[in-house]
Amino acid sequence: MVTVTASRLGAFASAAFQRVGVPAPDADLVADTLIEADLRGVHSHGVMRLPSYIRRLQAGIVRPETTLSVIREGPAFAEVDGHDGLGQVVSVRAMDLAIDKAQAAGVGFVGVRRSTHFGAAAYYVLRACTQGMIGMAITNTIPLMPPEGGAAAVVGNNPVAYALPGGRERPVVLDMATSVVAQGKIQRAAGRGIRVPLGWGVDRNGHPTDRPEVILDGGMLLPTGGYKGFGLAVVFDLLCGALTGAGWSSSVTGMALPANPRPQNIGHVFMAIDVRQFRPLEEFTREVDAYVRAVHAIPPAPGTERIYVPGEIEFDFAEARRRDGIPLDDHITAGLQSLARELSLAPL
Amino acid sequence: MVTVTASRLGAFASAAFQRVGVPAPDADLVADTLIEADLRGVHSHGVMRLPSYIRRLQAGIVRPETTLSVIREGPAFAEVDGHDGLGQVVSVRAMDLAIDKAQAAGVGFVGVRRSTHFGAAAYYVLRACTQGMIGMAITNTIPLMPPEGGAAAVVGNNPVAYALPGGRERPVVLDMATSVVAQGKIQRAAGRGIRVPLGWGVDRNGHPTDRPEVILDGGMLLPTGGYKGFGLAVVFDLLCGALTGAGWSSSVTGMALPANPRPQNIGHVFMAIDVRQFRPLEEFTREVDAYVRAVHAIPPAPGTERIYVPGEIEFDFAEARRRDGIPLDDHITAGLQSLARELSLAPL
Repeated sequence: MVTVTASRLGAFASAAFQRVGVPAPDADLVADTLIEADLRGVHSHGVMRLPSYIRRLQAGIVRPETTLSVIREGPAFAEVDGHDGLGQVVSVRAMDLAIDKAQAAGVGFVGVRRSTHFGAAAYYVLRACTQGMIGMAITNTIPLMPPEGGAAAVVGNNPVAYALPGGRERPVVLDMATSVVAQGKIQRAAGRGIRVPLGWGVDRNGHPTDRPEVILDGGMLLPTGGYKGFGLAVVFDLLCGALTGAGWSSSVTGMALPANPRPQNIGHVFMAIDVRQFRPLEEFTREVDAYVRAVHAIPPAPGTERIYVPGEIEFDFAEARRRDGIPLDDHITAGLQSLARELSLAPL
Repeated sequence: MVTVTASRLGAFASAAFQRVGVPAPDADLVADTLIEADLRGVHSHGVMRLPSYIRRLQAGIVRPETTLSVIREGPAFAEVDGHDGLGQVVSVRAMDLAIDKAQAAGVGFVGVRRSTHFGAAAYYVLRACTQGMIGMAITNTIPLMPPEGGAAAVVGNNPVAYALPGGRERPVVLDMATSVVAQGKIQRAAGRGIRVPLGWGVDRNGHPTDRPEVILDGGMLLPTGGYKGFGLAVVFDLLCGALTGAGWSSSVTGMALPANPRPQNIGHVFMAIDVRQFRPLEEFTREVDAYVRAVHAIPPAPGTERIYVPGEIEFDFAEARRRDGIPLDDHITAGLQSLARELSLAPL
């Protein structure tokens, strides 16, 4: 395992995107989203994904120059088309539009069609927080989970993220897949050659397994909380897909090549709530701070060292890694070094 | 167990509310929300709750005449005060306001403070569906769940509900508590004198138990999906409480008397999305229909008879019970008969 500084890793990722035609500001932006994920300990959505993003750009399936066109809009909403650009660039622009709408109307709601994999959702909702707003983001993805009692996948583990600004305390941030765990965690376990807990997924016949490579090879993830996670995933698929005009269920396609040569047609929804239009921002952030302290004041059960507020573990991770560097698994480093050779970039 | 027709049970509930000063149209409305819950098989939010609602009205803690005043509003949002009226009346009016806002601005978002227990959330989101809109509702409640590794409750099992209109198919409806199960299910088990599965809750010291009366006597519910359910509950508490100016965590109070003589100061959020402003309604409902059929087309695993779409079980229940009547547990009937004597109403 090697450790790389965030700035070094970010420069590498940006250079790789620029090599395949992504304009420098967009390359920097996407690189920043990946590095933020690694900093926050969410390696499943960090630079581990870089080679697969690059390959889809090289294949011309993701467009290097991202345009966002507004199909319909009103005072508080917009429906936009991402034209198969980079999901991260599409998403930052769509969230910024939601923030603008919220400034004008109290809340802003932006639905996106024809986008691609957007990485970690926390990045976009935290953007709303810096404006004193509450952010919400959802996306859909390819079918990965069966319904209760079903023997085939029909819905993605479509995630949802929220961020609410604190005052002296850090924001409350929730970024969760609707499966027991995100697929990237299973990919990471497969890359490291380790087993996963039973209950994370099933094989292609619906039987429980602890072997990540079996889950990934035509198997399925299981929804968190059974029918609850499944229900949330279906609702998010309909909001991201049927409402916006993007794909949903099996009409959203995966990223792996050459199996998936078509644009993904992923949909997202971003929402911003302008707190100031409801009450003075300081009143709100004071209550968020008080909430954080109320959670911290809960006595820990025997065996627990510390009680965490949603998002806190990731902020702590990011603080430490900004200082000490980002540790990368060997298989991730190997993928990046091979990418460097292929693109004639200086090795990491 | 006795079986009562929906109309008979509704007339009884409405008469009880009117006896304690609730105007007839509001009494009919609240009765309708309770009967709908019983029809849909959600007995935990049905007429089982009637005696406790009546007692709080009698004690003057819930106001029989409900007023809703707008504190602040914009094109797409409103923040309203329920003045300690009946949560169901407050909620129908707030959802109708969200629907009006959505008609004007594409989306409507209404935050409510100073409300009371609103029953089953599905009722309000289905109201949006009848207008060709997508509905969303959340509420907070008293602390019932500990954080991960915590030995005391800090957050309610704050539920969320969504409804999305279908065309030929019925709407997709999700109404879920953020605990493994709703508290009412545990109350119902206690009333019937049966055990509950391990994992639904813990005793007052945080130890697992299958005895519902132990969970209810100072014990706690467990969040669905661990930190995921906990995180959703905290986010919903902040949206319903800190954003709207209602209570949150322990500043929301319970319904039981004489332990809780103060107004509950519950908060809710209702949201409506006007589908027609995104795309023709028929295009959307056609895709919802196709989604329902895609889920139904999933092969069942061995041992499963039928695959359900979110909300389908409840619609099936309601259809059968509208025809055959609503079966009531003996302890619920006993509570209603005793209420009838107390209020000089004809017995059920």
